[in-house]
Amino acid sequence: MDLSTISLGQYTFIQNAFSFGLAVMAAASLFLWLSRSNVAPAYRMAITISGLVTAIAAYHYLQIMLSWEAAFSVTNNSISETGYPFNQAYRYVDWLLTVPLLLIELILVMRLSRSETVSKGVWLGGAAALMIILGYPGEVAEDAGTRFTFWVLSMIPFIYIVYQLVVGLKGSIAKQPENVRGLINGAATLVVISWLFYPIVFLFPLIGFTGGGAITAVEVGYTIADIVAKAVFGILIFTIALRKSEAEGG
Amino acid sequence: MDLSTISLGQYTFIQNAFSFGLAVMAAASLFLWLSRSNVAPAYRMAITISGLVTAIAAYHYLQIMLSWEAAFSVTNNSISETGYPFNQAYRYVDWLLTVPLLLIELILVMRLSRSETVSKGVWLGGAAALMIILGYPGEVAEDAGTRFTFWVLSMIPFIYIVYQLVVGLKGSIAKQPENVRGLINGAATLVVISWLFYPIVFLFPLIGFTGGGAITAVEVGYTIADIVAKAVFGILIFTIALRKSEAEGG
Amino acid sequence: MDLSTISLGQYTFIQNAFSFGLAVMAAASLFLWLSRSNVAPAYRMAITISGLVTAIAAYHYLQIMLSWEAAFSVTNNSISETGYPFNQAYRYVDWLLTVPLLLIELILVMRLSRSETVSKGVWLGGAAALMIILGYPGEVAEDAGTRFTFWVLSMIPFIYIVYQLVVGLKGSIAKQPENVRGLINGAATLVVISWLFYPIVFLFPLIGFTGGGAITAVEVGYTIADIVAKAVFGILIFTIALRKSEAEGG
Amino acid sequence: MDLSTISLGQYTFIQNAFSFGLAVMAAASLFLWLSRSNVAPAYRMAITISGLVTAIAAYHYLQIMLSWEAAFSVTNNSISETGYPFNQAYRYVDWLLTVPLLLIELILVMRLSRSETVSKGVWLGGAAALMIILGYPGEVAEDAGTRFTFWVLSMIPFIYIVYQLVVGLKGSIAKQPENVRGLINGAATLVVISWLFYPIVFLFPLIGFTGGGAITAVEVGYTIADIVAKAVFGILIFTIALRKSEAEGG
Amino acid sequence: MDLSTISLGQYTFIQNAFSFGLAVMAAASLFLWLSRSNVAPAYRMAITISGLVTAIAAYHYLQIMLSWEAAFSVTNNSISETGYPFNQAYRYVDWLLTVPLLLIELILVMRLSRSETVSKGVWLGGAAALMIILGYPGEVAEDAGTRFTFWVLSMIPFIYIVYQLVVGLKGSIAKQPENVRGLINGAATLVVISWLFYPIVFLFPLIGFTGGGAITAVEVGYTIADIVAKAVFGILIFTIALRKSEAEGG
Ligand SMILES: CC1=C(/C=C/C(C)=C/C=C/C(C)=C/C=O)C(C)(C)CCC1
Ligand SMILES: CC1=C(/C=C/C(C)=C/C=C/C(C)=C/C=O)C(C)(C)CCC1
Ligand SMILES: CC1=C(/C=C/C(C)=C/C=C/C(C)=C/C=O)C(C)(C)CCC1
Ligand SMILES: CC1=C(/C=C/C(C)=C/C=C/C(C)=C/C=O)C(C)(C)CCC1
Ligand SMILES: CC1=C(/C=C/C(C)=C/C=C/C(C)=C/C=O)C(C)(C)CCC1
Ligand code: NA
Ligand code: NA
Ligand code: NA
Ligand code: NA
Ligand code: NA
Ligand code: NA
Ligand code: NA
Ligand code: NA
Ligand code: NA
Ligand code: NA
Repeated sequence: MDLSTISLGQYTFIQNAFSFGLAVMAAASLFLWLSRSNVAPAYRMAITISGLVTAIAAYHYLQIMLSWEAAFSVTNNSISETGYPFNQAYRYVDWLLTVPLLLIELILVMRLSRSETVSKGVWLGGAAALMIILGYPGEVAEDAGTRFTFWVLSMIPFIYIVYQLVVGLKGSIAKQPENVRGLINGAATLVVISWLFYPIVFLFPLIGFTGGGAITAVEVGYTIADIVAKAVFGILIFTIALRKSEAEGG
Repeated sequence: MDLSTISLGQYTFIQNAFSFGLAVMAAASLFLWLSRSNVAPAYRMAITISGLVTAIAAYHYLQIMLSWEAAFSVTNNSISETGYPFNQAYRYVDWLLTVPLLLIELILVMRLSRSETVSKGVWLGGAAALMIILGYPGEVAEDAGTRFTFWVLSMIPFIYIVYQLVVGLKGSIAKQPENVRGLINGAATLVVISWLFYPIVFLFPLIGFTGGGAITAVEVGYTIADIVAKAVFGILIFTIALRKSEAEGG
Repeated sequence: MDLSTISLGQYTFIQNAFSFGLAVMAAASLFLWLSRSNVAPAYRMAITISGLVTAIAAYHYLQIMLSWEAAFSVTNNSISETGYPFNQAYRYVDWLLTVPLLLIELILVMRLSRSETVSKGVWLGGAAALMIILGYPGEVAEDAGTRFTFWVLSMIPFIYIVYQLVVGLKGSIAKQPENVRGLINGAATLVVISWLFYPIVFLFPLIGFTGGGAITAVEVGYTIADIVAKAVFGILIFTIALRKSEAEGG
Repeated sequence: MDLSTISLGQYTFIQNAFSFGLAVMAAASLFLWLSRSNVAPAYRMAITISGLVTAIAAYHYLQIMLSWEAAFSVTNNSISETGYPFNQAYRYVDWLLTVPLLLIELILVMRLSRSETVSKGVWLGGAAALMIILGYPGEVAEDAGTRFTFWVLSMIPFIYIVYQLVVGLKGSIAKQPENVRGLINGAATLVVISWLFYPIVFLFPLIGFTGGGAITAVEVGYTIADIVAKAVFGILIFTIALRKSEAEGG
Repeated sequence: MDLSTISLGQYTFIQNAFSFGLAVMAAASLFLWLSRSNVAPAYRMAITISGLVTAIAAYHYLQIMLSWEAAFSVTNNSISETGYPFNQAYRYVDWLLTVPLLLIELILVMRLSRSETVSKGVWLGGAAALMIILGYPGEVAEDAGTRFTFWVLSMIPFIYIVYQLVVGLKGSIAKQPENVRGLINGAATLVVISWLFYPIVFLFPLIGFTGGGAITAVEVGYTIADIVAKAVFGILIFTIALRKSEAEGG
């Protein structure tokens, strides 16, 4: 990532995107935790975890924003580097924590047997960790070849996870009350689409975006993906839980 | 926005206005969330969202205040620019988040059918996003022509939204218990008047205000509009919910 | 306010007074909100508002303290000005928010008819705003004449408010259960005495206090008045609510 | 207090002691407030106040720690003074707030008649304020004579308070359920011993400790005394309340 | 600890590990406290304490992270020392607080008689304090001999504690409902393994790791051990409490 190619406009746009991410994540946590008592007790754990995912993300967007501001110095409408590196690892550290939490939430939603829950948790959690750890060297690599190689490696556990989720979630839909089937279908679709967004964003610097434009596309792209996969997903899970609670009579 | 025209008095006045905005927004969130249990469960979601709107605004007023302080340096009763730009985008980022939340709240209050709720949400939300995105280039433009052009463009979705709200809210008033009709009428009026304030404030630099005076009029104008549209509106919604809860027997 | 006349001892004493104010206000909010469930639901709104008044004050004491520290530089037992102005407006911004809240609380305690509540709220709120806005130019004026002129102007709405409160509170005492009459009488007295303290403190620089001594007298005087009018008053209101809740059987 | 005599090791040790104090106080507040619902409603006020005492102390340990760090500059294993004074007053401001709160708590525990409660509160509160105000000039005095004089003066109200507490607490023990008598006896002993610790610590610089060693002994000594008198005492009060709640059937 | 041997990559890796630790600890506290009402009242104290342990750790990871960042200066991909020492004591201060809390939690889980609870608490708490105090001089020693000597000394109370825990926990397992026996066995194993990790990490600089590599191994090693012994352990305790609550019918 060559920070010297960033223009003042791009710097500010990315800074605003990070602040927007922080505000959305924090607001989602507050909403989910404040509204938890509206759903039946059986669904509260899922809402708590959803709010935890967005709270962890809010913390990391704060760190990312501070690191971004520390990397640049702005004076009289001109921007320069301070020499202090922008720490991209915060995103990967965030994913290392939140992707397993999201997987646990999805597995809980599937209501599998206890042994299947544990084995799925271990396999999917392991695959997720592998996916993120394999992606990081590509993210910080300077040359396109390395970036692409690690993308391919990271795609292997990714495809395994997405496949498991689609099969698992579709399977659990049959067991659901009718008035939430559409929503759960929507949730399954949302998960797949929002997760697919990440490896595509990762490829931006290889498919035409260069310099500051590539950095902007990647940072803003990940931020949008995070908002959908964490905050929008959390609200959807909450809506499903609310409907189910009403269906079961509250 | 030519910051060099700001006098020390104007700088301090705007700084105090931002601090006032921050305090009002934070206090409104605390009040709404602490008092949530006073209203019947059916109205709590609306109160939660109202408090979220003011909390998000509190965060953005903090950022605006910090950005304002970073843009100026004060010594021995004289003020100068630091060269670090004042980031006006925080306001627009705030609106991008809070205007849809306020629209959701108003739609929930109308108690439409589920399909109508979704379609209204999509149309009004889309129009609101368009309105704000079209307004931003005008806000940061240096010349009056560009400012006015984007004002006109932004007014189109604005008029559509206000029209929909007035019709929708008036329609829902007939279905309300008698003791809150006056209040809901008041809320509808408050929404229209407070929202109308924004495009008028936007026009200040085109209708006589110049230099530091224009900046002061715009910043203080938006702050007052925000306080009315978010905090005062939230208290009004809370009062309505309280009356309804009492009417339904608690 | 001529900051150059402040000695190191006065600087530290005022800094400690501000920190004390902050700690008292924050502790009062925590106490009131944590203890809210101890009183009957009918009195909780008053407790919530009391806690809000002290929370808003805590925020402003933090800002005042930071502004005070930014205005001076201390090295090797000698103090000098940094040239960054001490922002006295934070006090007035605080009063603009908290005085109306206190008036609302007192009006709620009087349990007037709805229309009387609204009309009293508008008249007293307006008078309070006028009183504070008229006081500010006197507070920041350099010469004694201007300070005194605005004191006189500000005293007009002040006397109106105090008169209304005394009459209103005395009137409501007759309707109260016997075991709290003494306390409500005490609250009425506390309001009048603590409010009277403000215009007296304002006059200090005109009645003998000069230089750093005047600044110390004013800042510490207002801080004591605020602690009595906000925190002590809040605890008294809480005690009254507790007694009433017990009287009505809990 | 001659800061120039502090070694790097002593600086770090004291810094760690302040951080330890902050962590203990904050943790105690969280524990007490989170566990409040475990005890019967009659005892919750005492738990709330206990948590308030430790919260106020946490705030002051934060300020003390920041003031300590601002007073020294460390580079390459060598320490020097910045010239910015270490503000010892934070401790005394803390005591001015927390000692009356602790006394109120103890008086509430004695369950005296209402008039006796008020008169004890006024007398003990006044004595406590006197004790602390008389101690401060001795604490900041440079010469041993002044330090000792104010110690003697401060001891007069101190002895009065301790005597009242011992007599009062012993008297209330007879009225207690058997399973908590031992604990209340323990609490009375803990109060006396922990309070006795303060005037002893105050004397350290007069009984052999000199330079950095005296400062270390005083700062660490007060910190230990505070932890026992506030946090440990709070946990003990909580345990007593828990036992009593169980005894009365919950 | 010779900070000059740290490379930029190692610096960033350790910084990310500290941030990861902070995020995990804070998230664990939030999860445990938010989910407390899901378990039967009898188990809530243990959950509260678990959340307290992770909250205290979150505070110390914040301090460690700030101290780490203050010790280094990064510019243009090169790293240098600022001369400000990295304060390793925060870890030991943390353990001094959290190890006794964990021991209390484990003793509560064993459900011993009251007198045995007190005597175990005193003995194990004393041993833990001894273990940590004896370890610290070794941790900050420059030469391998001193490091090893204090390791040996610290191992004595360590072995005593682990032995007591294993015997105690195994003994309490027989009294447990069948569906949680496996989990409690797992908890006992987790405690032993995670605690064993600490003295092993301590030895890293003596068994081949040198320079920046040794520092990285120690800091990251302790962080992993802390996450397992505090956060993972807390979640396990919560799961046990949840199962038991269900077994006893909720
Ligand atoms: C496949 C792939 C990737 C996938 C990342 C994903 C799928 C992240 C999901 C994050 C979520 C869902 C966070 C929500 O909390 C990387 C690492 C970009 C590297 C390139 C290849
Ligand atoms: C029409 C118009 C505008 C309208 C802004 C509005 C209507 C903002 C409302 C904000 C609210 C209600 C926030 C509350 O949370 C702009 C963007 C100033 C640009 C000029 C034209
Ligand atoms: C009459 C008068 C004044 C009155 C101030 C008052 C009465 C303030 C009350 C504040 C309270 C009660 C705050 C509590 O939250 C001023 C403005 C000093 C200016 C001089 C004349
Ligand atoms: C007698 C005496 C003193 C007593 C201090 C005490 C008794 C402080 C107690 C503080 C507590 C209990 C705080 C808990 O929140 C001083 C002022 C050191 C000055 C020297 C003489
Ligand atoms: C034996 C030994 C040690 C043991 C440390 C331990 C066992 C720490 C446990 C910490 C926990 C469990 C924290 C959780 O909150 C030291 C001090 C490294 C020094 C070397 C010898
Ligand atoms: Na910067
Ligand atoms: Na960084
Ligand atoms: Na500035
Ligand atoms: Na900015
Ligand atoms: Na300063
Ligand atoms: Na200022
Ligand atoms: Na320093
Ligand atoms: Na200081
Ligand atoms: Na640094
Ligand atoms: Na340090």
